[in-house]
Parts: sequence; C-alpha cells; structure tokens
Amino acid sequence: MGIRVAVAGASGYAGGELLRLLAGHPDFDLVAATAHSHAGQPVSAVHPQLTGLGLTFTATGPAALADADLVFLALPHGRSAALAAELPDSVKVVDLGADHRLADPDAWARYYDGPHAGTWTYGLPELPGQRAAVAAADRVAAAGCYAATVTLALAPLIAAGVAAADDVVVVAASGTSGAGRTAKAHLLGSEVMGDLSPYKVGAHQHVPEIKQATGATGLSFTPVLAPMPRGILATVTARPTGPVDPREVLAAAYADAPFVRLLPAGQWPHTAATLGSNACHLQATVDLDTGRLIVVSALDNLGKGAAGQAVQCANLMTGLPETTGLSPYGVAP
Amino acid sequence: MGIRVAVAGASGYAGGELLRLLAGHPDFDLVAATAHSHAGQPVSAVHPQLTGLGLTFTATGPAALADADLVFLALPHGRSAALAAELPDSVKVVDLGADHRLADPDAWARYYDGPHAGTWTYGLPELPGQRAAVAAADRVAAAGCYAATVTLALAPLIAAGVAAADDVVVVAASGTSGAGRTAKAHLLGSEVMGDLSPYKVGAHQHVPEIKQATGATGLSFTPVLAPMPRGILATVTARPTGPVDPREVLAAAYADAPFVRLLPAGQWPHTAATLGSNACHLQATVDLDTGRLIVVSALDNLGKGAAGQAVQCANLMTGLPETTGLSPYGVAP
Amino acid sequence: MGIRVAVAGASGYAGGELLRLLAGHPDFDLVAATAHSHAGQPVSAVHPQLTGLGLTFTATGPAALADADLVFLALPHGRSAALAAELPDSVKVVDLGADHRLADPDAWARYYDGPHAGTWTYGLPELPGQRAAVAAADRVAAAGCYAATVTLALAPLIAAGVAAADDVVVVAASGTSGAGRTAKAHLLGSEVMGDLSPYKVGAHQHVPEIKQATGATGLSFTPVLAPMPRGILATVTARPTGPVDPREVLAAAYADAPFVRLLPAGQWPHTAATLGSNACHLQATVDLDTGRLIVVSALDNLGKGAAGQAVQCANLMTGLPETTGLSPYGVAP
Amino acid sequence: MGIRVAVAGASGYAGGELLRLLAGHPDFDLVAATAHSHAGQPVSAVHPQLTGLGLTFTATGPAALADADLVFLALPHGRSAALAAELPDSVKVVDLGADHRLADPDAWARYYDGPHAGTWTYGLPELPGQRAAVAAADRVAAAGCYAATVTLALAPLIAAGVAAADDVVVVAASGTSGAGRTAKAHLLGSEVMGDLSPYKVGAHQHVPEIKQATGATGLSFTPVLAPMPRGILATVTARPTGPVDPREVLAAAYADAPFVRLLPAGQWPHTAATLGSNACHLQATVDLDTGRLIVVSALDNLGKGAAGQAVQCANLMTGLPETTGLSPYGVAP
Repeated sequence: MGIRVAVAGASGYAGGELLRLLAGHPDFDLVAATAHSHAGQPVSAVHPQLTGLGLTFTATGPAALADADLVFLALPHGRSAALAAELPDSVKVVDLGADHRLADPDAWARYYDGPHAGTWTYGLPELPGQRAAVAAADRVAAAGCYAATVTLALAPLIAAGVAAADDVVVVAASGTSGAGRTAKAHLLGSEVMGDLSPYKVGAHQHVPEIKQATGATGLSFTPVLAPMPRGILATVTARPTGPVDPREVLAAAYADAPFVRLLPAGQWPHTAATLGSNACHLQATVDLDTGRLIVVSALDNLGKGAAGQAVQCANLMTGLPETTGLSPYGVAP
Repeated sequence: MGIRVAVAGASGYAGGELLRLLAGHPDFDLVAATAHSHAGQPVSAVHPQLTGLGLTFTATGPAALADADLVFLALPHGRSAALAAELPDSVKVVDLGADHRLADPDAWARYYDGPHAGTWTYGLPELPGQRAAVAAADRVAAAGCYAATVTLALAPLIAAGVAAADDVVVVAASGTSGAGRTAKAHLLGSEVMGDLSPYKVGAHQHVPEIKQATGATGLSFTPVLAPMPRGILATVTARPTGPVDPREVLAAAYADAPFVRLLPAGQWPHTAATLGSNACHLQATVDLDTGRLIVVSALDNLGKGAAGQAVQCANLMTGLPETTGLSPYGVAP
Repeated sequence: MGIRVAVAGASGYAGGELLRLLAGHPDFDLVAATAHSHAGQPVSAVHPQLTGLGLTFTATGPAALADADLVFLALPHGRSAALAAELPDSVKVVDLGADHRLADPDAWARYYDGPHAGTWTYGLPELPGQRAAVAAADRVAAAGCYAATVTLALAPLIAAGVAAADDVVVVAASGTSGAGRTAKAHLLGSEVMGDLSPYKVGAHQHVPEIKQATGATGLSFTPVLAPMPRGILATVTARPTGPVDPREVLAAAYADAPFVRLLPAGQWPHTAATLGSNACHLQATVDLDTGRLIVVSALDNLGKGAAGQAVQCANLMTGLPETTGLSPYGVAP
Repeated sequence: MGIRVAVAGASGYAGGELLRLLAGHPDFDLVAATAHSHAGQPVSAVHPQLTGLGLTFTATGPAALADADLVFLALPHGRSAALAAELPDSVKVVDLGADHRLADPDAWARYYDGPHAGTWTYGLPELPGQRAAVAAADRVAAAGCYAATVTLALAPLIAAGVAAADDVVVVAASGTSGAGRTAKAHLLGSEVMGDLSPYKVGAHQHVPEIKQATGATGLSFTPVLAPMPRGILATVTARPTGPVDPREVLAAAYADAPFVRLLPAGQWPHTAATLGSNACHLQATVDLDTGRLIVVSALDNLGKGAAGQAVQCANLMTGLPETTGLSPYGVAP
C-alpha cells in the first residue's frame, strides 16, 4: 500500500509533469488530480501525453484532497495559501507556487497582490542543511524554476565567501512552458519560434526569492524567452573576493547531491541534456578579461525547476530515498 | 542479480536512448556499451544527458559482448550481421538495424549493399502472433521506425480485409534524429529549423519492410524531414473494400496492447505526446470526399521506433512483463 | 505619384506581410491600414518587424478605404463580402479571404456559415488563361495558401490528361502562421514546437477550392500542423493515365512563370528556401512501387500563399509587371 | 550601367545572404560569386533559396574579382588578407571577416593564428564619425555580428560617460547560422533544437573587437548558442557613473540612423522582428535592484551582423544612399 498523493491544479504544465512523474513513482499512489475548469474531463484530454492513465479531473477544493497523505499544489501564484489553509494538518503539502517562499512580507508585497501567506520550509534540498529541514517539514515551498537554476549556481560561491554578494549579474533564458498554458498571443508558436526576447527587464518578481536563497545582496536579473518548450540556462557572473577556482567550490558543495552535476572541465551545460529529468548541470570558470566568476547552470524548468523538485521534496518528507521515481538522465536528443 | 545486457553501437542516437532506458530498467544490468570511434571515452562525453552514468565506451567486438545474456545491436545498417555471427548462440540478440528484417533477399539487394544476412523473427510484438514469436526467439530484428509507425496504422486494416492492399499511399514525416548523428551539412540546425523537405521520394529503402509487415502489395511512401529532434507522424490512406469504421478494427486489434492507443474519437495524434515514451497513438476516419480510409499514427522514432521497441522485445525474450522499464507516457510539452 | 493602396484587416499575419511588401513596393503608396481592435495603435505595436514604418491602424470600414485605388481585404473568412459591397466600383479589390473563391454555392454552404458572397476572378495567375483574367478584373479572390500549393503541383497534370482526376491523395503540412494570430492554447509555442499533428482530417474546408482550381474530382486532403512559423509542403500523388514524365509537363506549364520553379532533377523542395519570397518550388517523380505520380510543392503560406499572391494579382490589375515589389528569392537559412 | 560587384566566399551563409541582397540591389551588378569547393556548380545547388538566379560559382582568386568595382570578402577568418593583397588598388573591398578589424596586433595574436593583416576602416557606420570614414575609404572591415550587436547597445553610453567602461557584463545568444555551414556534429539540428548552451566562456575571440569598438576596458562576454537559424540578442549591463536615463542617450545617438531603432518605452527587442532585415532594435532601462544600466539589442546576424552591414558600407563607399537595397523591416512571424 503506497503513500496517497494528490495534485491540485493538475491541468497546467507543471501539473501535467507531476502527473507523469507520479504515474511512474513506485511508492506514491495518485488518488486525485484537480483542475478547476476541466473538472469531469479525462486527464488525457488536456495532457495527451498521459493517454492511458485513466484518470479524470475533479474540482479543486479541500474535499478532493483531504483524503491524501500528501498534496501537491500546482496552482497559479497567489492561489495556494487559501487552499492550503483548508487542508487538515495531517496532510503534508508541497506548494509549487510562490505563495510561501518569501520570508520578507515586503518583498512579497512589492511583486504580488494580496496578503503575504507566511513562510514555509524552502524546498531546495541541495542548500546546506535544507535536505534535513525538508525531511522534517510538513509544509514545503518548492523552489521556483529561475530561483533553483540560479541558486544552485551561485549559493555555494557566496556561502564560501569567494563571490561578492553585492554585484551579481544574471541573464537566464527559459523555454516557453515557464510562461504557462494560458492562451496569450505573444506566446503563440508563430511568435516564439525563431525568436529571443527579454521580459520584465530590471524588475522581475523572482529577484527577492533568488536573493533570499543565494545570499546575494545586489542582483541584476534579466530573463529571456527562448524558442524551445522546456529548459532554463542561467549565466551567473559575480566578482571574486580573491583568487579562487569556482569549480572546486561547486564540486565540494555537490559531492553528495544525486541530481546536481558539475560537468568535467571544458564541457558546458546544455538544457537539452536535462529534458524530462531532475538533473541540474553546472560549469564554471574565471573570465579572462575581467576576472569575474562565471557559472552556467541548466535544468528542466518543469523537472528540477518544478515537478521534479516537488517530488524530490515529497520523497524526503515521506521518508523515501530522495531519488525515488526521479531520473537523473535527460531525454535527448 | 539482473539479466546482463550490452549495447553495441551505443554512441548513436538510438544507442543513447537504449542506454537511458537500460539505466532505468529494474531487471537489466548494463554491463557494456561499445562504440568504435569513441572507445575509452566516458559515455557522458558523447551523451551529456547521461552525465552521472559512470560508464565508459569500449571497442565494438565480440569480446566486449559475449559475456552478456542479451546484446542490443545499434549499428549502422549493414554492420549487424558480421558481429552477430561472432556472438555465441547462448547470447540472445536484438538487432535495431535493417540487416535481418527482410524475408526476401531480392528486396534487400535492391536497396542495400552486400549479401543478405538472413531473416530473424520480426520485432513488432503488436502484430498478430508476434508477441509469442518474439518471446520464443533468441534472435530478433526490431522493426524500423518508419515501418513500425506505418504498420501499426495499416496492418490491422489489411488483415481484416477492409483495406485494399494494392493502393496504399503514405506520407510520413520524421524528426531529424532519424537521420543519425553523423555530421552532414543538410542536417545542420541552420538548415532544418523552419524547414520541411521530402527525401528519397518514390524509392525509399524501407518500402519492402513496410510491405512485408503490413501485407500491402502496392505502397507509395514519401518520407519528409521535419524540424524537430524526435517523432514520426504517418498519414496512411487506403481504399476501403466496403463500408467500414476503421476505428472499430483498430480498437479490436489493440485491445490488449499496452503501448498502442487508439485515441478517443475526434482527438488526433501529436508526436510530442509520445516523446521519450514507448507509446504509439492512432486515430482513423473515412475521407468525406473520396471515401478513402485515413489512419494517422504517431510515435517517438527513438522510442517505440527504435530503443523502446528493442527493450520491449528484450523483455519478452527474457520472460519479463512486456512493459518493464518502459513508459507509456510522453514527456510533454 | 504612385497607385494608392490600402489594407483592411492589417493586424493579422497576412496583413502584416502585406504591409511589409507594400512598404517596399516601388509603385504602390500605402495610404491606410485598418484593424478593428487595434485602431489608433501604431502598426509597430502589433508588428514589431515594421518598426519605423510610422503608420497607425485606423478602424476597418469603407470610409478608411474608399479613397484608395486598390484595397486588399485580409479579413477573417466570411467577413470580406459585406465590406466589399460597401466599396465604390471604382476601387479595385483583392480579397485574401475565402469569401469569393468558390463558384459552387453548395460547396460554400458545406464548410462556411452565412450566404455565398458570389464568385470573383480566381487569383492564381499561373493557371492557364488566368494571368489575363486577373489583369482584366476589378475584383479578384486570391488563391488560398493550401489551394495555391496543391494547385501549382497538380493542375497541369490534370489539364494535360496525364493524371487521373478521381483519386488524388494530398498530405500538406503548414507552419503555424496559417492558423492565424488569435490566441488559442493548442497554438502556443509550448504545444507546437517539437510536434506534428493533423487536423480537420477527412473534411477540410479547402477541399472544394482545390478541386475547383485543379480539376480533381476526388481528393483526399490531410493537413498537418508543423513546428515552424511559415511554409507549406504539399505531397501530391495521383494515378497516371499512361506513361509520362511529370517533370516535362510541369516544365512546359511554368516555362514563363517568374515565381514557379521546377527544381533540377534530384533536388527536392525545401519550405525554408521560399521564406519571405513569392516563389513556389516544385519537383516530381514516378513512384517506383505503385507507379503513382508524386509532385511535391513548397511555398511560403504568407508569401505566394497569401500576401505575395495578392500583390502579384494587384500588379497585374494595375498594369504593372507581375514581379514588381516581389522577390523570387527566399530568406535562408 | 550599375556598379560591378563580386563576392568571394559566396557559398557560406553570409555569402548567400550577400547574394540575395545584391540580386535585389538596384545599383549593384553582381558579376561574380566565387567558392573554392563549389566552383562550376550553380549557386542554387548550394543556396536553394536563390533558385532562378542563374549564376555559377567560379574559383576564388584575384582573376575572378579584379574586374569588379567593389569586392566583398566573405571568407573564413584569416583568409581575407592574402586575397585582398592580390586585388588592384582600384578595386574597393569590404571584408566581412575578422582579418582587418583589430588595431592591436597583440589582440589579434591572442585569438588567431598567423600574422596580423593590418587595420582597415571599421565598418559600423553608426559609430560617431564612422559614416564619413567609411564613405571615404577604399578598404573597410565590416563589424562582426556579436560586435555590432553589443557595440550599438553600449558605445553611446560609454562615449557619453554615463556607463563605467571597466565592468561591462554581456550575455549574447546567437542563432546557429553564426557558426557557419561546415558540418559539425554539435551543430546538427538534432543537437541544437530545444537546446541552449554557452561556448567559449570566459575567453571569446570577439572580446578585443568589442572593447575596441565600444571603449570598454573590462568586458565579461558569454556567448550562447540558441535554437533558431538567425538572430542575436545581447543583454548588456554596465554600472552607471551617475543618475541617467539610458534611453535618452541612445535616442540622441541614433536620431539619424535609419537602421538602428530605440523601441518605444516598455517594448523590448525580438530577434524575429529583425529577420532578413538590416535593422537593429534597442531598449534600455535601469535595474531596480542594482542600479545597473541594462541595454538589450537585437539584430539578424546575417543581416546587420554581416551581409547587410557590408552592403550598407558598400553603399557609402560608392556614393549611394546608405539604405539602398536594404530593408529596415523584418520578415515575421
């Protein structure tokens, strides 16, 4: 008899990837998938990749979820808190949304509407001490996709004191699934194929999460929409505080992390190599001209950036090995 | 203690996908991966999606393979026969190449160089009687990617006598991984992105295999290169021999097939929904204007069209459940 | 002093391409661009590729258009007739929509809502006699994108009596711009990238137009959505009535056509080679297995399939050389 | 009688785009296109988008070129100097390669083999004073694609003293045509579609050119390969020297530049909007968190980044209006 899990908001892209991972998970039994506007429809009508799953969407609400041992919330940002408050304390919860990530209510207020919902244990197990914290928690706010990508690249360098925290410059490009499945003209295939374009330049709502998770005190973050369905590639640069080999710091930080891989010297990350997996690939060097530290990080925004991250946290929260039901290997080419 | 398996020709795209599937297979132990020109290199240098696998390519030859219980041959067409002949009889073999598929030496001679290597059990378990035949065989020639896509759409209609066998028209578009990883200018990303182009029009080497597997006696087959890494979509049309609902015939044919899915009426196949999976999705209708039967079939050319197909056969040959280590669910979007 | 032209419905993809072509046309002066929901906005807010054009959308209606010598209607299907009826007889009109293409009201009624608007001169100048007919007309219904692609491949073979008209099978794949810029979830970049999928299988509204334009009496037409912004590739097969080299028939038909090119033997069309141009590339052969004639045709659905076609017609209607302001050369790679 | 122009190295991507632009240029007569390994072949065999051009490649060498009034050199980096030395002084030359761009022989020696070829007038007419310098020159080294993209974004800010020159951070992503048409496995469509990956991180050969052209004294430059055939998007950040609106500086710098466009506030550049054009689109802001200036620049690497740039220079060198034969409007979607 497995652990009973449910997904709220299962009609979105992160929700669909969660269902895929849970369908193949050996210890989780998927007992409910809710979706407000698709209640009553077969899951495969929305997610044709799950044809054969034999599951039907139910309406989102505590009734559909309270029976589970663990609930994943894959709702739009700002919608998790109300639903979470209605779930019994006995139900463990992993929130894929932004609602419970920020410790600072002011940072929340600057970028989001509505009251700050409170702060849950941050779901990025590779941060120092965080694996144990997640394992001990009943409520976990899984790291966001951009934040996970940047944090895995940067946090060890700041923690080790080798990178200055006050002048970090990040440019990160994401596949289009990061923008969700709501029909918007600027996300049409005709618009995005063959195109690169930045957005929310100079003022992105994920800046506070990244600063909180990395320890950066000054962060210039420019996100770019890239012509591919999945994947994030972050180029992170920071001034060194002294001579350092950033590869040594990263290698030490992730020596025991099953999903975060420092690539062999000379081999740089490819987002395609992480597709469908829970892997994050890293590489680092020192810039010849300026001496800046450059770390490049790649992951699947729906994998280690969302659904995979959430399952990894759920594994820890339920006492399973961290890697259960998750692949470190991408689907490529 | 698992079943010992090895892959010859593991540096190609089908080989890489085989390694990925075998790395996650619960009953197969991957003991060797050979690659002529990459011997001595880590597998992840060629397949960065397999970073962390900790395997090194060895030279292709019987020495590296004879120790396995089952060997997968993922070599270029025409190279399997010589190597297979050097393997002990006790080693089961699944050939992903074309060498042992054709029953007719003349058909072989028309499209390939060198002598005909002989005919092995055809590895498409969904054909009538073929699941048992594969399970009983020590040597299996896994169906080719185009042949699998077209055969799953067409064979039941010809077998049931509802489609005329002498005037089948197929147009099938494939992602670029079907053309292999040898560097050729016309396969550069700059050339293929944004482009559709047919090739080998009117005379494709896979026509004899498709005719043999489907029972078609006249087949016009036009392959098209499509701007995506993976996936085949085949549009198969045939004249009906009388009034028929092709959906009923297909539903009956695949009632017990775990990987072949007739979609609900009105829902048409998407190649993206099969990415990374061993699924084949089908839909059919009768053309309003001509009365022709139209069946559309989609699969992942490296999954059900190659590596997944081969693992499915290997499962049967070693007494495992057909679905072991294979997912019916695609990675989408 | 140039010829005054205006575009109604200029906010769509065909409208945007029209504006681009007209901005570079040496003899047409663009005096108005209308767009119902974007009136008052600069054109470049909707079409950033036209930054610098310095034009503002006005509301769609006869007032904005009656002052032009020639009006292009790039409205949704079914919207042209009402507007056209309000334009003075002295204004020449090219309709890019389907409203005035069909001669048979029953065919219209089968696929479209509303009354049949009447039949205008068919705007595909490469058909026999049609160049002169277009030049003499004041109202022209430019050929649709699929119809143009298929007709240029097929009409000469039926006209020459070398292809049977009653059993034509066509599979044609189109880039996503053919589906328009209205925001729909199934057209999101996340959905279409990496995906091939057929639609309206067995009953497409363009079948009557293709039959009318080609002389085909039986036509199985399967359209496929392809992961690229532009381009149509049509694979057209028909039974021959006797021994024939289809290349000779096509070469003769297009000896004097500046935009339709039979490629050298052995070279097959690439949609990418026609991007941004008014070219249509053709190649043909006889299928080795069935003897069917196979013709493959490629063009830019927004070029020779829409805006370029319309400008070509407008050139003829205003006494200009057919090629004015149009390029036969694609933008590639 | 037009100005006689020739292209050396016309079989590459930049060469093909040059031929396309020259075929449509009203004042240039294309008299020769040379290509070492394709001599004797029709141009359309290599560039199918130029079908109908009716030109044949000749062997690269002074004999084929000396008869022209102006020669474009589109050769691999390091090959221009030898050929240029053999051309008569009376022949004007525009070099699209890197050979004659750098003023500092040491910078050349650090990244390229062979002796430094000397320094020609730098072909980026939008730099202060450079339009006149190009117009007066007989030998021009057209700006490289990355350098043009970054320089147009950054040079005015450094020249105006509002951006610190010593700590510039640039991440720039390019379509695959920037990597040329030589067949290499890592540039296959199967590898690049769906993938983002950086390369030459921390030590790129274009750093000296960018520093020279912009006045930057410290430049961290990370190039990324993006899954599209064309386009460069550069994100340029620099510390301000004081309070400044970077839009004002850019607006003033390009008030009279026909091809460089500062977009309206709030609208950010899209590479797709520049496809096939000679346009460069810019937008700028001040980062909320760090106060850094952020300028984003987009252009077509084969257009304003190569062939279009070269034609713009050639126009100036021959006394034509700068814009002759060049479009400021992109082909989109």
